[in-house]
Amino acid sequence: MTENRKLTLKDIARELNISISTASRALKGHPDISDETIRIVKEYALKHNYVPNVLAVNFRKNRTFNIGLIVPELVHHFFSTVISGAIDAAKKKGYNVIVSQSNDILQDEVTACRTFLASSVDGLLISISNETFEGKHMLDFINEGKPVIQFDKITDQLDTPKVIVDDFEGAYQAVKHLIDEGYDKIAHLRGRSEVKNANERALGYEKALKDFKREFQPEWIKECKLINEEEGYVFTKELMESENPPNAIFCITDLVALGVIKYLKKAGINIPQQVGVMGFSNWKLAEIVNPSLSSVDQHGYQIGVTATEMLIEKIQNHDIESHETVEIKTNLVVRDSTRLSKNEFGNI
Amino acid sequence: MTENRKLTLKDIARELNISISTASRALKGHPDISDETIRIVKEYALKHNYVPNVLAVNFRKNRTFNIGLIVPELVHHFFSTVISGAIDAAKKKGYNVIVSQSNDILQDEVTACRTFLASSVDGLLISISNETFEGKHMLDFINEGKPVIQFDKITDQLDTPKVIVDDFEGAYQAVKHLIDEGYDKIAHLRGRSEVKNANERALGYEKALKDFKREFQPEWIKECKLINEEEGYVFTKELMESENPPNAIFCITDLVALGVIKYLKKAGINIPQQVGVMGFSNWKLAEIVNPSLSSVDQHGYQIGVTATEMLIEKIQNHDIESHETVEIKTNLVVRDSTRLSKNEFGNI
Repeated sequence: MTENRKLTLKDIARELNISISTASRALKGHPDISDETIRIVKEYALKHNYVPNVLAVNFRKNRTFNIGLIVPELVHHFFSTVISGAIDAAKKKGYNVIVSQSNDILQDEVTACRTFLASSVDGLLISISNETFEGKHMLDFINEGKPVIQFDKITDQLDTPKVIVDDFEGAYQAVKHLIDEGYDKIAHLRGRSEVKNANERALGYEKALKDFKREFQPEWIKECKLINEEEGYVFTKELMESENPPNAIFCITDLVALGVIKYLKKAGINIPQQVGVMGFSNWKLAEIVNPSLSSVDQHGYQIGVTATEMLIEKIQNHDIESHETVEIKTNLVVRDSTRLSKNEFGNI
Repeated sequence: MTENRKLTLKDIARELNISISTASRALKGHPDISDETIRIVKEYALKHNYVPNVLAVNFRKNRTFNIGLIVPELVHHFFSTVISGAIDAAKKKGYNVIVSQSNDILQDEVTACRTFLASSVDGLLISISNETFEGKHMLDFINEGKPVIQFDKITDQLDTPKVIVDDFEGAYQAVKHLIDEGYDKIAHLRGRSEVKNANERALGYEKALKDFKREFQPEWIKECKLINEEEGYVFTKELMESENPPNAIFCITDLVALGVIKYLKKAGINIPQQVGVMGFSNWKLAEIVNPSLSSVDQHGYQIGVTATEMLIEKIQNHDIESHETVEIKTNLVVRDSTRLSKNEFGNI
């Protein structure tokens, strides 16, 4: 077999001494074929660049004009704006969006992927769960010639195109704003250390403190596991009762910031005069809470539109090989919870 | 042709003097067949109870295990909880949910229905737009043997199974609570008069006033068209500046109530001491706003689960003929905005 000729299914069958039908079904992960055979055939096919050829066939044969979309959680302001953008962008191109949620549980995510594969979606948009670290279940799409695009919560262990928020820069600007307003002891209620966007935000926080030579205290960083109101409340209590309390708190999300505000109000600590509070995500609640919450807008709708347009382009071009990353810029939304300079008479 | 034998496609073709292929394609609304022929064939088939027989065939042949779900708006707390329930219930039965939004525009809803039909969903869950009054576009599903279930925002012009909120009772209990707290001049910011659930809530409001013999003033009822914050703000200004201002305001949704609260705070009118405010839907914002907002919980997740389970049952039983209505009970959530008796020292 010469290397500059495209590998066919027949070649694989001959090389591995199996039937063409077995080779074909192994590539599709058919349940009648043993896991071992599937592994051998897929690895051989990948090694010899077989995949793109299968795909071309699949693309022509099986187009359903359905796209699968998996988010960690549906009842969530940011993800519902992403879904809304995805549906609107898909509709314009004649595609439907099948939506599923992982509830931040890896097994649910794997199941959603399998169901999508079984119902032959043309491609996958995914924001991974907190439990997802590698992407074997997503690789199954690529192996069937179906493009995958990761957005927001991503893993670098899987080489797909990505649409991400500039979490580092967003966090940097948020902390810079706190410094500009005069806060000099800034704490961070961060997300889980295994989650990429949580790390990016923490790095942006640290970089801003370093660039502007503000006090850095490891004990001012608390790791939220569930990213909820209760954690915001409990960690703020801990911070404010410590020997060296901060005078501003930058939170991984607005929901955590809500818990921070609740504790501070209950403890009679004035926001923003005594302690400034900064969220991240700019949910609707940021406008409504009292005092209104400064936050970082992530443009969820735009992320949904961009990721969907990219995916449909890949589907139409039979492209499962490119892996560019598109970064959607955040912007800072300043409200009363950090407006120290203009707010000396307190909140209404 | 005897009447107790089931009508076949061949019978229709013979009776109407068209080919079997034309009859078949007409029943499917095929673009090659004229609208007139489609109308004649469908009406004949309906009149002679042909539909169920076609369906049995369709059901066996074309099951995709995809369900279509259309809501007016995706970035909306209530509808996102419904979708979440629908996805979870569908997953348990091995079904996917394709989600679309009408943006409360009839044409968008019709387009979503057509796209769903083209991609062969097995059935439809729909909460109609504010512009939808009859259901021809939904009837297309039924004519293709695909069950339709309406939920929350429904039209009685289309005879399908329905899952609804007990809007009348929810509104009645909300207004009764206001009366129990001592409010005696209760206004209502209602929804559009063409929308069924808006009418039900308005009827519940009127009935409670009547039962407890409280003052009823037609000028205390204002019709919101867009159901947003701005309308709440503007109508409250109008009401409070009138000669006979109310001392409580019951709103069609929490979002409208948010505008009411904004105006009252701006005008220096104390909530709940001077004016009580009651929402409807119990969005997350009701907990967050200051003062926290009393509201009526609609159990969106449960509505999603119930409607989806019903739909899948109909799909599996090839049932497009039943039209039961399931009512999901609401419950009143009392918070600071109406807690007159226990709140004499004002809000924090």
